[in-house]
Amino acid sequence: MFGDPSVLADARTRLGLSPDLTPWDGEIQPREPGLSFHPVPSPPPEIAGAGPVGANGRASFLYFEKAVGLAAKGILQGLVTGPISKTAWHLAGLKWRGHTEYLASLYPDAIMSFWSDRMRVALFSHHLPLREALDRIHKETLLGFFRTLDRCLERVDSGIIEILVAGLNPHAGEEGLLGREETDEIRPAIEAGRREGLPLSGPYPPDTVFLKALGHPEKMVAALYHDQGLIGFKLEAFDMGVNATLGMPFIRTSPDHGTAFDIAGRGAADPRSMIEAIRLAVRLS
Amino acid sequence: MFGDPSVLADARTRLGLSPDLTPWDGEIQPREPGLSFHPVPSPPPEIAGAGPVGANGRASFLYFEKAVGLAAKGILQGLVTGPISKTAWHLAGLKWRGHTEYLASLYPDAIMSFWSDRMRVALFSHHLPLREALDRIHKETLLGFFRTLDRCLERVDSGIIEILVAGLNPHAGEEGLLGREETDEIRPAIEAGRREGLPLSGPYPPDTVFLKALGHPEKMVAALYHDQGLIGFKLEAFDMGVNATLGMPFIRTSPDHGTAFDIAGRGAADPRSMIEAIRLAVRLS
Repeated sequence: MFGDPSVLADARTRLGLSPDLTPWDGEIQPREPGLSFHPVPSPPPEIAGAGPVGANGRASFLYFEKAVGLAAKGILQGLVTGPISKTAWHLAGLKWRGHTEYLASLYPDAIMSFWSDRMRVALFSHHLPLREALDRIHKETLLGFFRTLDRCLERVDSGIIEILVAGLNPHAGEEGLLGREETDEIRPAIEAGRREGLPLSGPYPPDTVFLKALGHPEKMVAALYHDQGLIGFKLEAFDMGVNATLGMPFIRTSPDHGTAFDIAGRGAADPRSMIEAIRLAVRLS
Repeated sequence: MFGDPSVLADARTRLGLSPDLTPWDGEIQPREPGLSFHPVPSPPPEIAGAGPVGANGRASFLYFEKAVGLAAKGILQGLVTGPISKTAWHLAGLKWRGHTEYLASLYPDAIMSFWSDRMRVALFSHHLPLREALDRIHKETLLGFFRTLDRCLERVDSGIIEILVAGLNPHAGEEGLLGREETDEIRPAIEAGRREGLPLSGPYPPDTVFLKALGHPEKMVAALYHDQGLIGFKLEAFDMGVNATLGMPFIRTSPDHGTAFDIAGRGAADPRSMIEAIRLAVRLS
């Protein structure tokens, strides 16, 4: 756990918790299982605020940056990030929208993926206007994505043995009648990948590929743009999904919900998505 | 019921059914509740085929065309179409992909909508390449769609009191950072519609608008392209959804599944989506 000792002390008092925390200096990997705490110097955060505050955004960034630095050195194999306020980061003058953008600036091949018990989805592109996402769809770029995704899934104990590639157009283009991308870019990329031994299939009609993957944790949908992947995933996983960043030397997972300032400090938050995020980080690292 | 007496006779024998059918000449609306049968002359269809056949495509089109003709004259208020084979229509040399395209050629304002107990979705555009669907997104065109949709929902007993408009880009464009369509076209169309009294809200992030509508049958999502609407709807409704064509002088509904040639004639098909389609047609007409 990375953070400010004063925030931790406040939370202990407020919630009546006494977690068994071992101080950790961040020099070598902790040898014992358990919860270690690494204090991160930060400007004094405002503790009791009921909304996004720049000082807190700055503090949350410093904790995160410190943890990423230790993971990049190989001292940590995985990170679980709690939700941050993107508004607070913006108020703090940070140039990254959130965790994912910061990680992508360090690791341009990073892949956003989403995991629930019943569905797994990886995104070919994420925070782009839809038109730009469409412009990215080229055979070579797709093939590079498939290779990176496969390498990531191989390296970790993902349990995934098949990647179902979504098409772009209605009915996956219906042999060119409803769009050319499947014929000209997507299918050739899949075929080239298969010749290299990548476990790819598709392109499938976007509106049925999620039904094909549902209940098959050994299958992952490769979605071609943000909402193609997330409309399906969010409906299936509600607040129980986990976001995992792949394609970096370490694993990063995150619960699929926001900061919930309205219930902060009350002990009323539902911890299940965070628990799943921790489990997935353990498993994938 | 519109069809060929020989097919009906075969199905009776094969399935051991004796439905109580009243012959109907199609001249005036049947006065009694019950199942009427209107024979449609067609070239002899191939009954026992295990796949799409041109002659059967032609026959299914003739039944449909006849029923649409009677509905257009006001003799029928609603139609329920069984699934047809698009391949069979194509083999028969028909120029329409399916029912929807035929209806759209007669009624250019026709709107495709999807209904389940827990979710209702209308599509701004349907069978278009995604790039073309994006090119259609203009303030005036959207406003026209909102007006037609509202008029349709008003005219029938839809129970819908709010239309949730999806954005186009991730996070509904995030104030222009992730795309301009929300700011330049979609929001102005919504605001213009609201000034006219249309019950519109949004634009909402596409990956959460379906969660907002789920379990609220009084809300309908207006989706901006085929898969934006159908990824969510199909996951929620599986094979239990109903497709309803609005914006015509009569209602047309259809179950949300295909022909299932592999189980044809065995009495093994799941009738629930067809039952729901009939119920919705009754209610909306």
